[in-house]
Order: sequence, then structure tokens, then C-alpha cells
Amino acid sequence: MASPTTFHGWLGHSATSAKGNLTWEPFTPKPFADTDVDVKISHCGICGTDIHILRSGFGPTHYPICVGHEVVGHIVRIGSAVSPAFRLGERVGVGAQALSCLRKDCEECGSGMEPYCPNLFVGTYAGKYPDSRWSDGGYADYIRVSARFVVRIPEALKSWDAAPMMCAGITVFSPLKKNGAGPGKKVGIVGVGGLGHFGVLFAKAMGCEKVIAISRRWDKREDAKAMGADAYIATSEDERWEDRHSRSLDLIVSTVSSPDMPLAGYLKLLRTNGQFIQVGAPEDKLPGVSAHALIAKGCKIGGSQIGGPKEIEEMLRFAAEKDVKPWVQQRPMKQANQSVVDMENGKARYRYVLVNDDHEDHFKV
Amino acid sequence: MASPTTFHGWLGHSATSAKGNLTWEPFTPKPFADTDVDVKISHCGICGTDIHILRSGFGPTHYPICVGHEVVGHIVRIGSAVSPAFRLGERVGVGAQALSCLRKDCEECGSGMEPYCPNLFVGTYAGKYPDSRWSDGGYADYIRVSARFVVRIPEALKSWDAAPMMCAGITVFSPLKKNGAGPGKKVGIVGVGGLGHFGVLFAKAMGCEKVIAISRRWDKREDAKAMGADAYIATSEDERWEDRHSRSLDLIVSTVSSPDMPLAGYLKLLRTNGQFIQVGAPEDKLPGVSAHALIAKGCKIGGSQIGGPKEIEEMLRFAAEKDVKPWVQQRPMKQANQSVVDMENGKARYRYVLVNDDHEDHFKV
Repeated sequence: MASPTTFHGWLGHSATSAKGNLTWEPFTPKPFADTDVDVKISHCGICGTDIHILRSGFGPTHYPICVGHEVVGHIVRIGSAVSPAFRLGERVGVGAQALSCLRKDCEECGSGMEPYCPNLFVGTYAGKYPDSRWSDGGYADYIRVSARFVVRIPEALKSWDAAPMMCAGITVFSPLKKNGAGPGKKVGIVGVGGLGHFGVLFAKAMGCEKVIAISRRWDKREDAKAMGADAYIATSEDERWEDRHSRSLDLIVSTVSSPDMPLAGYLKLLRTNGQFIQVGAPEDKLPGVSAHALIAKGCKIGGSQIGGPKEIEEMLRFAAEKDVKPWVQQRPMKQANQSVVDMENGKARYRYVLVNDDHEDHFKV
Repeated sequence: MASPTTFHGWLGHSATSAKGNLTWEPFTPKPFADTDVDVKISHCGICGTDIHILRSGFGPTHYPICVGHEVVGHIVRIGSAVSPAFRLGERVGVGAQALSCLRKDCEECGSGMEPYCPNLFVGTYAGKYPDSRWSDGGYADYIRVSARFVVRIPEALKSWDAAPMMCAGITVFSPLKKNGAGPGKKVGIVGVGGLGHFGVLFAKAMGCEKVIAISRRWDKREDAKAMGADAYIATSEDERWEDRHSRSLDLIVSTVSSPDMPLAGYLKLLRTNGQFIQVGAPEDKLPGVSAHALIAKGCKIGGSQIGGPKEIEEMLRFAAEKDVKPWVQQRPMKQANQSVVDMENGKARYRYVLVNDDHEDHFKV
């Protein structure tokens, strides 16, 4: 078991690569540091951010690029300074963050808030390392990353279920957990997609008293109920939904971001001291809200960004213990292009996971 | 000691009354309920909201009106159902709220969050009682109000200091307290006015590690420092203030509300997980903020509204214990018109308090 000097992956070369023009090619990973591990990838989820970056949606992307940050695989190489010692062959996950400053005097890194590190945030792909090299992600055969951002996958979890938890899962798990989701709490999840479906699943598994799935149209209602949602709101098809569900929620986690989102309506759904936490793509400004809407109910609008390695481990243990099963559609890694196109066209129900079949077999026990 | 059937107060008859056209007149208070008390007013602070309501700033005001909701005085009549029993002659305060539903099954009223009661909020003036009568405030000789919204004033506090705490004070005390202001915390107060100067005083008295006063111009810097501010930012005169003070604050309480407030800059001042709480006048929409600004730091924007009677009592005890002394300018009640005009022109340093001299003398011990 060893890693090659050259990796192979689906590379995007321009903004049109999001349309299914990725090409399978060799590429040279970053130089191996003694704090790194190499992971032989068995599974990689397809995240909306992948497509966004492929089409330069957050500003010009540095091409060529290999995207993917919902990675599961097995360790095939371990740096000499890696601690705690991972074992070769161990099954691990890699999420959306590849590195932070990790300095002991960094308040964020010292308290499990690595995604908020103000000194360094290297994304798993499209991130720039201190030596100016760009990072590459998991639509590939191998990935090289700091061991500090690699987490063990509990045995009870299937690899294809664990993969999308590494970004979509933790992005909603973290704000649910931090903001008190649990028994006695009523929670709304805006958007029933890759992130949102995890929101419903996790909120139910946390024992929330009521979970309302909130989408624009009715078409995902049956799915949402099958995931465990107690109620469903279709904001563009329900009449007077803001009034009918007024003051019913303690917490809303919003997985969509659009300048025309009915934010004032969402705030009406909150109870006194309720919170609205935005985790969806940050391209746009949120609609302006009246100060009165916040003041009169003592409520808050916040944001949350993925989660640190410790939080990811906590989520994985929780998912294993509560048997949380995401709705995953597995696709062979060679179907990356079609899967990206299908994802972009809203066909995922609710997460595509690319599978390197041979890699998985290799490690089967 | 008894209350008359007719009260006297400074009445506004139209939107021009905010320009100094109040007239001292008799008026008939609401019918005395067995849960009410009558208070002989010795002091009443002048709040920005008074002027706003006088000029129909939040929508058409019902005239005639007597404003004022920072009231201190002595109880002169007690309803038969008042509990806990107040004593005649006792010194009490009346704040900005005159009544909520007070039902036992009301989540808010049952937990000290009366200002957020979704069933009933009667303001001390310009509020509508369930019987459709309008409430009248404290630019007057007497006030009639539910005993449930009357609080005792600790002996150590001067009446003129306690009066402006009943609205300005509690409006900043509550969000500071609820959001963890105290040792080790760095707090910013936006606006150095009636509310903001209480923000600086209370934040320091709570033992915050650092308090930054934030205003538009330099002119209040010396005052703010004398109040205890450790630093001062003048947003329209300091260059690069957002960068120089970037990530330095855990909590900001904003006492001003303007559609052109530099909200994005304020958010830059927050540390990871920091909070920005708006308490200023709710006429305008807050500027739209990028979702990214909230997500990348895990921070929140919220609102807070005055405080319930229990919180007010807690604040008064705290102020007495810590010897918090607001900057008050006492004016005879007969100078109400000039004081309203001076307040509107920004001359208050930092709170005018109208005084019924004869009433105060009457109760001197």
C-alpha cells in the first residue's frame, strides 16, 4: 500500500467545465509534508459548491482544478510527524477544509473552530497553500491533505453515507447543535436539497419536537415527510404560510441563498428569541430586514460555516449511533460529468456520490 | 395622600407638538382598575421615542397625547387586587410598557419576557388598552398604570438617575446581560446618546475587558472616555476604522438606527461568533448584509426590546450596587417644551429629566 507520485482526477480547465467538460487526467499533488496523509479515495459526494467553483461562480477560479470535498477513502501514506498516529489502511473522511493556521495562540484553532480561523483557510480544492500551490479535491483516485483535517469514519457508517456528511452534513449539523436543536425545540429547514435533507434527518435524530421542511414548491413534500419532517411549507404555492405558521419555530437553518428569499416571512415563523441561521451559498446579499422585525421578537439572524474536525467526528458518531441514513445515489467515478450535469439540473435526490469501485474493493474486509 | 380624578400633563395635539407646542392641560386617566396603582410623578426622562411619537414618526399618532415613559414617583393609590402589596408613598418607577396579557399560559409573560408578549403590548403612552382607551405617559403630575409594570426603586438610587434607566437604561442593560457582557468580553456601543451612554456605563460596571464607544464624529470622545470607554471610534472621521479595529469585539449593541449605518463595517469589528444587537428606533430597514459576512465568522445580528419588570428590578439593584451614575440634566417640568426642542436638536448630555419639584419635596424624608 503506497501512493503514486502522480494522481489522476477529473480536471476542469475553464468555466464551461461545469457543463460536463471535465477530463480524466494525471496531476501532480502538492509536495508531501510530514504532517500529511495520502488517502486512496473510494467515495466523493457532489456538492453544489463544486459546480459553483467549476464555473467561476465565486470569482475567477484557478484552472485546471479537481473539485470534490466530501471524500471518504483509506489512508495509504502517513507523514512522519502525524499525530495522533493513523494506521495505514484506516478508513477516513476529508471535508471542505484542508488547512488552517493551527497555531496554539489562535483562538479559533485552539477551540475547535478551525473553519473560522482568521489567519488561514485553505479549502480542500481551490484553496491556496502558504507556498502558493492550489489545492485539489476528491473527484480523483487519491487526495493529499493535512492529517489534522482527516477524521476516522465509525465502522457502523457506510462510506457512501459518510461521504456527503463531510460537507453537506456538517454544514447543517453544526448550527443545529450550536443553537440548541433537541427535545422541546421546533426547527425549520429551508431548502430540501443536499444540505436541507440532512437538516431534516439530523433535526429529527436530535429529538426535536417538530421539524418543518420549507421549500418553494410542493414537489418534495412526500420525500421530506419520508425523511421525517412533521410538516411542509411551499412558500410559492402555500397561501398565507407566514401567518399560518407564525411564531412556531425556535430555529430555522436556511440552506438556500437567494436575494429574493422571503426572509421577512421566515422571521415571522420564529418564536420570541428565535434564530435564523444562514448556511447557504454566500454569493448574494441577504434581503434587508426591518430592525423592528428583530427587535419586537428579540430574534437573531446568523451564519455558520461547515465545522471543525472535532465537530465532524461528533457528527459521525451521532449519525452512527442514531442510524442517520442520507438519501444517496451512487454513481461510478467515470460518470462524473453526467453527474455534475444532473446535479446542476436539480435531479439529485438528494446527493450524488461518485464511487471508485476498484478502490473500495481493494479495501474490503 | 390620594390621586385626583383629573390629571394634568403636557399634551400634544398634532405632529407639530414635537416642536415645542405642548400645552399643560387637564386630562382624564383611564378608569382605575383594581390591579392599578396611581403614581404621583416626581421625575420623567425625555426619550427620543417621545419626540418620534409626538411628530407621528411611527405612523399617525392618536392625539391628544401625553408622552413620557421614564417615570419615577410615589404611589398614592393602590388597587384592591394589587399583589404583591405596594405601600402608599413607596417610590417606584414606570417604564415603557404599561401592560401585557399576563396570562399564565403565555410563554413570554410567564418567563419575564413581557415586552415580547405576542398577545398584548400596551405602551405607557400611545398604547391602546383592550377597552380601546389610549394610554398617557409621564410629562404629567400623575400616572395610572398596572401594578405589575411598576417597580420599586432601591434606596441608594437618586430618582433623577433612576428615571432614565426605566427605558434608556433597560434597553441596553438587557441585551448586554443576555449576550454575556462581563469579564473577558470586549463590547462596542454604537451611538453615544441617551441609550449609548448607559451602554458604556453598564458595560464597564459589568466588568467588560474593553468597551469601545462608536459614534460618527469625534465630538463625544472626551465624554465617552469620562464615562469609562477604553477606546473611541468616529466612523465618519476615522480612516480605516473597520480594519484597525477588525475582529476586536465580542458584542456590539447599536443604539442608533439609520438606513445608511455602516453595518458591514460594524460586522468587521466582531470576532468569531460575535453578535450585533440592534436596539435603536425601528423605523428603517437595516442595510442588507452579505450572507458571507455572517457565515465566515459565525456571527449574528439580533434585536432587543426594553426589558420586563424583573429585568428592570435586576438592573436597578445592579446600578445601586455598582453606583452607576447616568449623566442627567434636570429641568423643571414646566420647561418641557424647551427640553423637547433641545433634545431634538441633540443638545442632551445625555438625558434630560423633567422634575415636578413640588412633588419631590412632598415626599422628601
